[in-house]
Amino acid sequence: MRLTIEADLDYLLPRPADVLLQVEVAAMADQRIETASLTVGSDLPLGAVVGEDGIGQRCWVRGADRLVATYRATVTVVREEVVLAALPATSVRLLPAETVAYLLPSRYCQSDRFEGFVAREFAGLTGGAMAAALVDWTRMSLDYAGDGSTGTTTALDTFASRRGVCRDYAHLLVALARAAEIPARCVAAYAPGVDPPDFHAVAELWLDGAWRLVDPTGMARSDEIARVCVGRDATDIAFMTVFGTATFVRQRVSVRRE
Amino acid sequence: MRLTIEADLDYLLPRPADVLLQVEVAAMADQRIETASLTVGSDLPLGAVVGEDGIGQRCWVRGADRLVATYRATVTVVREEVVLAALPATSVRLLPAETVAYLLPSRYCQSDRFEGFVAREFAGLTGGAMAAALVDWTRMSLDYAGDGSTGTTTALDTFASRRGVCRDYAHLLVALARAAEIPARCVAAYAPGVDPPDFHAVAELWLDGAWRLVDPTGMARSDEIARVCVGRDATDIAFMTVFGTATFVRQRVSVRRE
Amino acid sequence: MRLTIEADLDYLLPRPADVLLQVEVAAMADQRIETASLTVGSDLPLGAVVGEDGIGQRCWVRGADRLVATYRATVTVVREEVVLAALPATSVRLLPAETVAYLLPSRYCQSDRFEGFVAREFAGLTGGAMAAALVDWTRMSLDYAGDGSTGTTTALDTFASRRGVCRDYAHLLVALARAAEIPARCVAAYAPGVDPPDFHAVAELWLDGAWRLVDPTGMARSDEIARVCVGRDATDIAFMTVFGTATFVRQRVSVRRE
Amino acid sequence: MRLTIEADLDYLLPRPADVLLQVEVAAMADQRIETASLTVGSDLPLGAVVGEDGIGQRCWVRGADRLVATYRATVTVVREEVVLAALPATSVRLLPAETVAYLLPSRYCQSDRFEGFVAREFAGLTGGAMAAALVDWTRMSLDYAGDGSTGTTTALDTFASRRGVCRDYAHLLVALARAAEIPARCVAAYAPGVDPPDFHAVAELWLDGAWRLVDPTGMARSDEIARVCVGRDATDIAFMTVFGTATFVRQRVSVRRE
Repeated sequence: MRLTIEADLDYLLPRPADVLLQVEVAAMADQRIETASLTVGSDLPLGAVVGEDGIGQRCWVRGADRLVATYRATVTVVREEVVLAALPATSVRLLPAETVAYLLPSRYCQSDRFEGFVAREFAGLTGGAMAAALVDWTRMSLDYAGDGSTGTTTALDTFASRRGVCRDYAHLLVALARAAEIPARCVAAYAPGVDPPDFHAVAELWLDGAWRLVDPTGMARSDEIARVCVGRDATDIAFMTVFGTATFVRQRVSVRRE
Repeated sequence: MRLTIEADLDYLLPRPADVLLQVEVAAMADQRIETASLTVGSDLPLGAVVGEDGIGQRCWVRGADRLVATYRATVTVVREEVVLAALPATSVRLLPAETVAYLLPSRYCQSDRFEGFVAREFAGLTGGAMAAALVDWTRMSLDYAGDGSTGTTTALDTFASRRGVCRDYAHLLVALARAAEIPARCVAAYAPGVDPPDFHAVAELWLDGAWRLVDPTGMARSDEIARVCVGRDATDIAFMTVFGTATFVRQRVSVRRE
Repeated sequence: MRLTIEADLDYLLPRPADVLLQVEVAAMADQRIETASLTVGSDLPLGAVVGEDGIGQRCWVRGADRLVATYRATVTVVREEVVLAALPATSVRLLPAETVAYLLPSRYCQSDRFEGFVAREFAGLTGGAMAAALVDWTRMSLDYAGDGSTGTTTALDTFASRRGVCRDYAHLLVALARAAEIPARCVAAYAPGVDPPDFHAVAELWLDGAWRLVDPTGMARSDEIARVCVGRDATDIAFMTVFGTATFVRQRVSVRRE
Repeated sequence: MRLTIEADLDYLLPRPADVLLQVEVAAMADQRIETASLTVGSDLPLGAVVGEDGIGQRCWVRGADRLVATYRATVTVVREEVVLAALPATSVRLLPAETVAYLLPSRYCQSDRFEGFVAREFAGLTGGAMAAALVDWTRMSLDYAGDGSTGTTTALDTFASRRGVCRDYAHLLVALARAAEIPARCVAAYAPGVDPPDFHAVAELWLDGAWRLVDPTGMARSDEIARVCVGRDATDIAFMTVFGTATFVRQRVSVRRE
């Protein structure tokens, strides 16, 4: 699947501020970047550092007055759809080093709180069968709605409110998976079909030796998702983190299948 | 039903402290006090003030070194079991003044968070049918277990952990009922059959013009429950609130059917 | 001091909903209502019930499509300024029954969390001296700013963010006072000088046998405040509680000294 | 400084469980391991994976019935005391990739909440001067006390309660430092002088191009601390994480200067 991606950010900065952008598609085996350009109006050169888990990159900008960023890319995604339910379970003690942190609770995915729910409602399931059940449960138990979801909404909030946006779906699925002893991380991504069009957030579950991409909202197919970066939750994968204050002017994201 | 109640408290107070006790059965139409005595070892006379909603009484004690309190009572409970599901709904705007506060969130019953869950999982139900469904759901969704439940566990915590003690069952039911626009309050009580024997916490839901007593744990029948006091949640109905520090020495509660 | 009060609410209701309004000045000894009228466009008659602690009234409205409410009043406030710091302390065990609940934590004033801070930072103070110190501390430690404050911001949030609106100032002061064993409640009010003009929230502390009105923001003098209602925190004293959904159209509050 | 370290764990496992141990001193330039042995009674071989940020190792154990672990080590710490206050500030956009995640909030260090407090109370400070001020403030503002601190106590809780154990001191300092745009991580460690003797938790702040070890409790000097592992907060650095249930039998930690 070939995707044409456009993202435009426009923000006011009342005072000069360092800004961390994560908007570029990560170069990975299953998503090949054909063309890509990031243009930022800034008085200083951009500084790029590698993203979490060595995936993608974080781009530092020194902004003053106004931050205007334009990202254009063409990406070919070659990823086979995987049937989660068929994947075997892995004992936590056999997990690779880099997945262990993804068993643990984080700021917005308080997996420690969900152990009781998972043990009770999904008793007997493990591995892929558990993962598939959790994805289905998340998809069916939530309404997609933006009201009530803010930048500080946690998985626990969403569990009770039963509504949220892509970020909230991802947080809840990730929290449940970790509570089920399945490593889970959040993924910032581009995908067609996201309505309204915007930066998207999905999840990856570690099953049978690999990270398995899944969109708990059901809006995107896994072979149409281009990852930007990964992390423990929204704190790690925000498309923009401002070390200061910024005011929204305009933002536009477009992802088209070619 | 005639109940014989015995409660013994024994605590150390490293420094003199004011202590609020709520351990006496409230005199009410449906629970008649035959005999009752509260003895507290204290250097100052006890001070009693009426409890929340004019029910029962709060007893102030000035404790020093050691607080030993003994309560003995014989109580006859005459209360008809009510079939909740058959009771009609009342629009919130027709509720009596004294019930309105019980529609609102409180420290441990954050009903504002549960509106989405209730609206989604119990859509179409109102009044007694809703109340009965919420009681059933609470009873069936939780495991009775003390580990993990502390004095600061909230309804939201219990909703995710799916386990708790009587206090947690009451908190969760009360939060859900308020989210369903049914006034709900917590009730401290004595009841036989509580295992292990202890002070008990149950709930009251306002339906069809009266407070309806219900034990979401299912351990006590409503005609075997003797109320001590009522309130918004455990903050109001604690059997002992120490304005200072106290160390547990010994505590015993016994409730027998005669 | 004579105040002329005007409040106009205009909200859209996508679906018919019961709405609880608390916008009328309460008739009390220290605030005399000269003229007052509340007009609400509604298909059903208004239903009024007495407010918390018997102060003021709650007005139920059945709204459909649009809720337009207009309140006009002229009120004379005759209240002597009291020097808090001079008032003696009262042992909690000698408090009147109706103040005990105001020693306890509530949804947005988690006073149980602040006991350590109060004991450490204000060691040795009691009664009016403590109250005055807490009012000063709150006033000096916070910045008046709306960004970051929402309907679910708690006293604990404000304690860390060190910023908020009148509601947040009141919550924090109330939480600190309760942690210092001083009964404290939140008060909805009208006052001139509130900038921008809006419904105002202040606090009352029980000292030396009476509730003492205080504005922790410092924007209003206590003899220029006309109370609407009181309660444990913002849950009890909201000017409008919608049992359903409402969308803001327009709102205006004006309070003028005559 | 040469340290002799002994740690003994003894826990009951009602059901077989995977257990993650982090008790071994990490081999690092400033702490040289002379001798070390970890013995665990287990039916399966231990599995070791590298720890967070490539520091130390996590050791997986399959436990059944009883988990008995014994760690013995002799370690020479060669680390110069650094005067934090003298270190210059680094703009966040010039930070190395591996420190960026340590600017962000985590489960127990909700640094996003503390930005207001830090900006207001420590205005004008940056870099080492800010770090030194935050360490001093944390040390002086908290009482070292175990009551009230549990495995789920957060930096925000500690900020209000003003008391805690080493874990709480580290959480609060880390949260404050991140709010001040200084990368900060938690460190599990051994140190003499910890009273009562136990596993210790301290912090590292990234200043002037290196991680600077600091003990906000003031109990240990930085040249007497032997790191075990690092991470975002207590979730990452727990000495034992049980994927199941364990009951405490006995635990002993001894750290002696030679």
